[in-house]
Amino acid sequence: MSRTQQAIQEFENTIQEKMRAFEAFLSIPSVSSDPAKKASMLDAANYLKTYFEGIGMDAAAVYPTDLHPVVFAEKRACKPDAKTVLIYGHYDVQPPDPLDAWTTPAFEPNVRGDYLYARGASDMKGQIVSVIFALESVLKTGDLPVNVKFILEGEEEIGSPHFESFVRDNADLLECDIILNPDAGMIDKDHPTIVNGLRGLVYFEVRVDGPKADLHSGLFGGNIANPANELAKIIAQLHNPDGSVAIPGFYDRVRVMSDEERREIARIPSSEEEFLAVTGSPALYGEQGYTILERQGVRPTLDVNGLYSGYIGEGSKTIIPAYAFAKISCRLVPYQQYAEIYDLAEKYIRSLVPPTVKVSFIKHSGGPYYFADDAPGLENLVQAFKDTWQKDVIFKREGGSIPVATVMQEILGVKSILTGVSLPDDAIHSPNEHLHLPTWHKGVQAYIRFLTSFDA
Amino acid sequence: MSRTQQAIQEFENTIQEKMRAFEAFLSIPSVSSDPAKKASMLDAANYLKTYFEGIGMDAAAVYPTDLHPVVFAEKRACKPDAKTVLIYGHYDVQPPDPLDAWTTPAFEPNVRGDYLYARGASDMKGQIVSVIFALESVLKTGDLPVNVKFILEGEEEIGSPHFESFVRDNADLLECDIILNPDAGMIDKDHPTIVNGLRGLVYFEVRVDGPKADLHSGLFGGNIANPANELAKIIAQLHNPDGSVAIPGFYDRVRVMSDEERREIARIPSSEEEFLAVTGSPALYGEQGYTILERQGVRPTLDVNGLYSGYIGEGSKTIIPAYAFAKISCRLVPYQQYAEIYDLAEKYIRSLVPPTVKVSFIKHSGGPYYFADDAPGLENLVQAFKDTWQKDVIFKREGGSIPVATVMQEILGVKSILTGVSLPDDAIHSPNEHLHLPTWHKGVQAYIRFLTSFDA
Repeated sequence: MSRTQQAIQEFENTIQEKMRAFEAFLSIPSVSSDPAKKASMLDAANYLKTYFEGIGMDAAAVYPTDLHPVVFAEKRACKPDAKTVLIYGHYDVQPPDPLDAWTTPAFEPNVRGDYLYARGASDMKGQIVSVIFALESVLKTGDLPVNVKFILEGEEEIGSPHFESFVRDNADLLECDIILNPDAGMIDKDHPTIVNGLRGLVYFEVRVDGPKADLHSGLFGGNIANPANELAKIIAQLHNPDGSVAIPGFYDRVRVMSDEERREIARIPSSEEEFLAVTGSPALYGEQGYTILERQGVRPTLDVNGLYSGYIGEGSKTIIPAYAFAKISCRLVPYQQYAEIYDLAEKYIRSLVPPTVKVSFIKHSGGPYYFADDAPGLENLVQAFKDTWQKDVIFKREGGSIPVATVMQEILGVKSILTGVSLPDDAIHSPNEHLHLPTWHKGVQAYIRFLTSFDA
Repeated sequence: MSRTQQAIQEFENTIQEKMRAFEAFLSIPSVSSDPAKKASMLDAANYLKTYFEGIGMDAAAVYPTDLHPVVFAEKRACKPDAKTVLIYGHYDVQPPDPLDAWTTPAFEPNVRGDYLYARGASDMKGQIVSVIFALESVLKTGDLPVNVKFILEGEEEIGSPHFESFVRDNADLLECDIILNPDAGMIDKDHPTIVNGLRGLVYFEVRVDGPKADLHSGLFGGNIANPANELAKIIAQLHNPDGSVAIPGFYDRVRVMSDEERREIARIPSSEEEFLAVTGSPALYGEQGYTILERQGVRPTLDVNGLYSGYIGEGSKTIIPAYAFAKISCRLVPYQQYAEIYDLAEKYIRSLVPPTVKVSFIKHSGGPYYFADDAPGLENLVQAFKDTWQKDVIFKREGGSIPVATVMQEILGVKSILTGVSLPDDAIHSPNEHLHLPTWHKGVQAYIRFLTSFDA
């Protein structure tokens, strides 16, 4: 039996006690947004520390932050020149409300058929323990060929307010070659999935100034350009009738998708109905000629994020507002350069402004698209997934950014592998959150293969 | 010497003591917006009451309100079936700030050349006393052929918050046939002016709803219609490229101006430079084919008064907002019906809304255009002005509404004659406010002629 098979066998042999440990972890109501659960947050952190100590990690510690602590653990490889894998996770969970919508209580894990029901079963206590259990089985059956570190935060569900400063303050401790972030998921239970791209961003504010102060709309209406009307006209000209962005040059660096790419994306199931149910919008919208997933992942967008002018309180006030502003962001795709897109946008908008008002800009932020095709260690995980599922890995582009991945890339200089074994219908953030145990089992096997792959 | 000439002569003979009385009134710092000046407000009211008593009014009283009092005074005519003229005025003034911009102190009236400098000299203590002095001289030289009432409020500069309830509660006291409101002004010192039309108004709110909550713009941008963008597109379609309103049917009831009307309006001097200086706008704007005064007075308009969507705080937040709204008003001209215009606007906007968002409306207010060609007593004043200036009267349409006129029309059933002898460059609301004394003298003469005109 191979080294990897021995570790997988160890996991299978000890599944009962692993499940008890997992369920004990799930029983801790580590709701980061609930001040009343502060002690539970510490309990969950200490639970992880104790478990890490139990499986023989070289170091395991709970680091306080200004709110919820970070758990760090480390196990050194058997050889001195081994690579280091840093595994990111979060042990906090969403609130369980509405409580009465749960078939069994959110913090009393319950197995029904192939599913384990509990808050955090999928997002992401189950994902954390899948990697810990994989490491445990590797450790119990032979040498560890790779240094392994864990950074498990307690504030992901509230926007990771102390994560960046923690990483910055502990950059030496967190030094690594590879980052594995298993907080994403699979497109379905048959297709292991890796997120290989995230969109970039440019975010700016356009302000239109007219009169020096709000004017009486009766006395001046008809003779003075209204900044709110003029801003609306500008915004209306930022899109073409087909839904594409009208800024000249906006698409110059956007690659035309190959037929193969489009076929690859088309393999990923997606449902218009699900999109509508999740958002509550009356109908989908989008650039003509593209599918939902193409629009989400590989096409750039422009959106107004905020809009203000004049009087917005109750009732009415008859004024020509002195000014109006819009906060506008563009999601960018390879190989759009955010600084260049900002310049193109400003130039185009200036060309739209009539001489009756003045325009000014604030540049809020910009960030590059995230292309994780080349995240270190990616090939090892691809092979581990292939060997486990006997299927090709699906590479998926996602629309947003994953801030913790950006933070770690900036500070540690390492791109994250974004993956995971949760499924789209796991009801994360909702009542009756659950985990598909057969898929999760395969996940543990895949992570065992990943960890032992560095043997060569 | 005629009855009227006797009264005019009386005024000229007593001008010195009249000026002392006027200056004493101007010396009271009756700034309604300043809580520290509450006692001065009462002083000003009492000053008027005492003056009214001194000239032999039948009644003179200070009526408290929840803030600043109203002064009422009445003098009955010599004959029982005489008509009743109600004179509206306000004894409060704007704050004098910035104080150091005054050549002589705001509340120390100072005559330099033809001008009297003081806060309130023009707006409108000078206008109030011009009518009181006219009445005084008529009373001293013979019988009064018309009942005269005064209603002088102390809250005009802060929006007349208690005026409507006072008029409603004292409708019997205020019963009248004619209302004279001398709070307007002349287009220049050579042209007596009467405002004969004010625009109407319809004010509504358009709300565009998209997703049920703010969405992550990265995950959903490109597939979900953005209510802020969609609202901007709607607003952009409310005007045609020539600056006219694009709502179908909007102009159906608007009369085409006759050449004579246009010539009449063109007689009124107006300056683009002055408009730009007052507003601070970089350039004028407006419906093509119309002059400034036509746009201001006789053409309807549409303006956004307020605009809101999403995140408008400091910095940035990447969301697709759940909703967006705009507060929109239209200034209306004869013979547009505000209820009909609202219906046309709603119908048109609904036709612009794509199926990807939902639209809803709030109707805030509506009011008719005010056509004062037929205000009772108008012919008497026109003749008095002609006899005084030896010039035809200019009739001017103004863009806004005069709320106190609307209130009195609704409650007392009488349209106001809107006029006055202030001049456009009197610097009202500004430092070094002043009154052109030769014009003001003519005004007193004209009001004497107006009061004695009811003799016939």
